[in-house]
Amino acid sequence: QENGALMTSESTHILPNFRIVIVGSGAIGCYYGGRLAEQGRDVHFLMRSDCAHVKEQGLQVRSVDGDFHLREVSIYLDPSEIGPCDVVIVALKATANDQLKKLITPLLKKDTAIVILENGLGGDEALADLFGAERVLGGLCVICSNRISPGVIEHSAGGQISLGEFSNYPLPRTHEIAWEFKRCGVPCVVVEDLQRERWRKLVWNIPFNGLSIAVGGVDTAHILADPSLRALVRKLMEEVIGGARALGHTLPATLVDDMVSFTETIGAYRPSSMIDYIAGREVEVEAIWGEPLRRASNAGAQMDRVEALYYLIRHATSQKTTS
Amino acid sequence: QENGALMTSESTHILPNFRIVIVGSGAIGCYYGGRLAEQGRDVHFLMRSDCAHVKEQGLQVRSVDGDFHLREVSIYLDPSEIGPCDVVIVALKATANDQLKKLITPLLKKDTAIVILENGLGGDEALADLFGAERVLGGLCVICSNRISPGVIEHSAGGQISLGEFSNYPLPRTHEIAWEFKRCGVPCVVVEDLQRERWRKLVWNIPFNGLSIAVGGVDTAHILADPSLRALVRKLMEEVIGGARALGHTLPATLVDDMVSFTETIGAYRPSSMIDYIAGREVEVEAIWGEPLRRASNAGAQMDRVEALYYLIRHATSQKTTS
Repeated sequence: QENGALMTSESTHILPNFRIVIVGSGAIGCYYGGRLAEQGRDVHFLMRSDCAHVKEQGLQVRSVDGDFHLREVSIYLDPSEIGPCDVVIVALKATANDQLKKLITPLLKKDTAIVILENGLGGDEALADLFGAERVLGGLCVICSNRISPGVIEHSAGGQISLGEFSNYPLPRTHEIAWEFKRCGVPCVVVEDLQRERWRKLVWNIPFNGLSIAVGGVDTAHILADPSLRALVRKLMEEVIGGARALGHTLPATLVDDMVSFTETIGAYRPSSMIDYIAGREVEVEAIWGEPLRRASNAGAQMDRVEALYYLIRHATSQKTTS
Repeated sequence: QENGALMTSESTHILPNFRIVIVGSGAIGCYYGGRLAEQGRDVHFLMRSDCAHVKEQGLQVRSVDGDFHLREVSIYLDPSEIGPCDVVIVALKATANDQLKKLITPLLKKDTAIVILENGLGGDEALADLFGAERVLGGLCVICSNRISPGVIEHSAGGQISLGEFSNYPLPRTHEIAWEFKRCGVPCVVVEDLQRERWRKLVWNIPFNGLSIAVGGVDTAHILADPSLRALVRKLMEEVIGGARALGHTLPATLVDDMVSFTETIGAYRPSSMIDYIAGREVEVEAIWGEPLRRASNAGAQMDRVEALYYLIRHATSQKTTS
């Protein structure tokens, strides 16, 4: 029955042969792009650091949902070599958003959709300002995926995308893109309110990514095992929910209990920001802490604990970042 | 002219031959008690760790205001050997306040005054509950003094005491005790509102002692050199001033600028809590952060950044404390 529904949707809505470009081929971009390519979709990767290696060796994905190895991968260093496409999937780090104009402009035709999978706030608006709000979709990924060596991606948990339009309720294309992901083995749900989902994710990222850095590089189990940090996690979550509400995004107060309980089930998880921090890579400080703080403040919501955390993270990352 | 005034005050008010006991003979207690003893006052030291050493070698003070060496020091391990006295000077760490009853009870007669030189909040009330509010005075010390080896105290900066009554405006005895300090080379001012002075000191201690620990053991110069921490210092100070105001202690908003400027002049200062933290000794977490937070909150003032800092310090000190 589910297959029937799926087939109906497919036959009714699907744009045949999406031409897809992955902009920012790190762990997230390679995983999702890899899944699509593995199932025969027309996927092109804009890749920087591992480009030569992947051209020779292909792309390997070691995944809890099944390993695969793409021997022939369509990769490019320069977006002008790719040309116009149907869907641009942006999987850059938010700290690279100053590259969006240069990287995406050559990829656009009249109705190209741009799906941005970045964490935090700011990327949607940056794309909307550059290329028009009607093009923009956003996706929230719940995934643990790391590049473990050149051309080798490890996907150890999760994988779901929550996909929504930036300036609209879900459109036919929203569902079409979601179905493409699902047909390729990526769970994908369509959400009505992208910004609410972004804030929902921030309710988790702000405390856990934040404390994992502020405390000097610790995992979620360490944070929850300490009564003081655990109390602070809850207070931070309440503040973020308050900030979201001031902006009109209603999130239930039960989210605090739910997220703490969920986090206990995932054990000693290392938030992505903490991995970046430890490795001396740039941390998405403004997208995850700075921009939410400014938006909540503009809407009249004080997030003073978040602000304290923001300053501590800015300090920690300014000491540590090497790149 | 000043000497004339001093002599008048002396001849009018001074209790002849105060019998003084120093309870808690660490760096602060030994410095102030040492100054009084050096000038021939009748000072007895209740001392724990360095007792045997000081009995043999005496007490050495290396001070910016002049070195001295007390060869014969009246020291005791047990307060019952000392017996009743006129003034008890408490220079314990606030974390040792559970010892107050045991240590002070044998020292009291009807009108014994108790002067507590501890940082933070809670000590005054603990003494008042145990021995009666009318006995209690408090002193805020602006001093940098460390025990550098057994029986050897280094006094590197400051030294002033701000002295006030716990439950009263200044009394004759307040001025008498202040004069005793001054005659012995210790600058001492009488303050009308002890709690306001405690909060004034907290405006400095909460951010600087706090961040010096939360950031992993850094000095004031490190804190002020970082724009994020510097901004956080100011926000924390504003919050503490707000907390003080909610409790009826008016402190000027200009205190933020004044204290930041002052702190720049003292260079790379290591707050006492940071020294304790680094050495693995207990930190006065409740006196400096917990109790002010609870009192401000009871008075309806949110100090959310201070709260975040409190949780981070509780975590840091629970990881590090060895004693």
